[in-house]
Amino acid sequence: MAKQDRAIRTRQNILEAAAVVFDQKGYDAATITEILARAEVTKGALYFHFTSKEELALAVIDAQVTQAPPMPYMPTKSKMQELVDMGMLFAHRLADDALLRGSVRLTLEHGSTSLNRSGPFNGWSQLHTQVLAEGLERGEVLPHVVPADTAELLVGAYAGINTMSQAINNRADLERRASVLYEHVMPSVVVPSVLARLDMAPGRGARALAEAERLREATVREAAAEAAEAERAGTPVGVA
Amino acid sequence: MAKQDRAIRTRQNILEAAAVVFDQKGYDAATITEILARAEVTKGALYFHFTSKEELALAVIDAQVTQAPPMPYMPTKSKMQELVDMGMLFAHRLADDALLRGSVRLTLEHGSTSLNRSGPFNGWSQLHTQVLAEGLERGEVLPHVVPADTAELLVGAYAGINTMSQAINNRADLERRASVLYEHVMPSVVVPSVLARLDMAPGRGARALAEAERLREATVREAAAEAAEAERAGTPVGVA
Repeated sequence: MAKQDRAIRTRQNILEAAAVVFDQKGYDAATITEILARAEVTKGALYFHFTSKEELALAVIDAQVTQAPPMPYMPTKSKMQELVDMGMLFAHRLADDALLRGSVRLTLEHGSTSLNRSGPFNGWSQLHTQVLAEGLERGEVLPHVVPADTAELLVGAYAGINTMSQAINNRADLERRASVLYEHVMPSVVVPSVLARLDMAPGRGARALAEAERLREATVREAAAEAAEAERAGTPVGVA
Repeated sequence: MAKQDRAIRTRQNILEAAAVVFDQKGYDAATITEILARAEVTKGALYFHFTSKEELALAVIDAQVTQAPPMPYMPTKSKMQELVDMGMLFAHRLADDALLRGSVRLTLEHGSTSLNRSGPFNGWSQLHTQVLAEGLERGEVLPHVVPADTAELLVGAYAGINTMSQAINNRADLERRASVLYEHVMPSVVVPSVLARLDMAPGRGARALAEAERLREATVREAAAEAAEAERAGTPVGVA
């Protein structure tokens, strides 16, 4: 492994270990010692990547938005389904993504420190605003909608149903609650013809992933077929 | 002051001092010593009312719902305006109600302890469910609405815009965010004729309080007029 690749993997390893400890203990009670033990790295390696517990926590918080897997949407796909999928996939991922869970806990809890937790709120709001603005341009969104207002409402409301679901039953019903949120809000946001075709039902997260996988496989098959065709024609691949 | 009244005031005094300390420090960092100093009571007095920091925190959490001031609504008033007012008044009160602020922090933060924070979520959900069920009976609510689902959505979403407003600008814009929430959700909940007359704009909290005050004064004036009338007629008050 190249030196740089190893550094990237070590950093990610520390980040994931820190997320687990922050998720279990909260920011105040988490210690660097525990994070070192879980990551199985030396103190020197940790401090090479992160100079303090605060810097580590901020990196975990940021990972929520920066490490969200991109979805290979077709350009013709409804932007509003993309909007709903951001929340439905989040609920689906939260079940077994330790880095995401640690990030969510740090974001939603206001610790005794002055840890700046506005990053994910702003990051998600920007992503939502962009998708809503594109939907507005395409005529999917009702003309009175202000993308930034609707975006911040969705992000804030989602954070709250997440906290409530955590407090009441350890997030067992988060996907159902997210579905209820979209069912209540989307009629005020999208035009009826788009609304009628939105999938906002529980289980949408898994369905969206399956769709993305089918799309990825189809793209790979298509590329392979094109390559075979090019070979038969004697044209070097990538030139035709 | 009767002995019992004094005990009630001491308890409330301790509760409010604890709320301020919990709001400033969070559950884990708050100490009984600080709460004693702020409440200016003896350790004996505190332990007479609350046996532990946990019991004190749970009482602060509960006060959010149990100490919400009742609104003197007229029976003819729209139940859906009442629903909106619960949130708009909450935003208005949060600005200068220390007990409410402490309670909100304890509820929204998941500390390292197993403090049960589901109380306010359930309490507010029950209040919202009841108002929605009455609105459904009166024909104010759209027939497909399931009161408990809409109630839990509103309570969860509200908690989230509260956390987001706290993280981004220390709650300066909570009332505006609450207004955006109702504008997005109420069209999916109430019939158009009721929707058209709902006041969901920022500042509604103060307007609702002013209305309640006018109503209270009118009731007092009416009672005084009735008493004067009864006196003129020679009938003992309360018998006519």
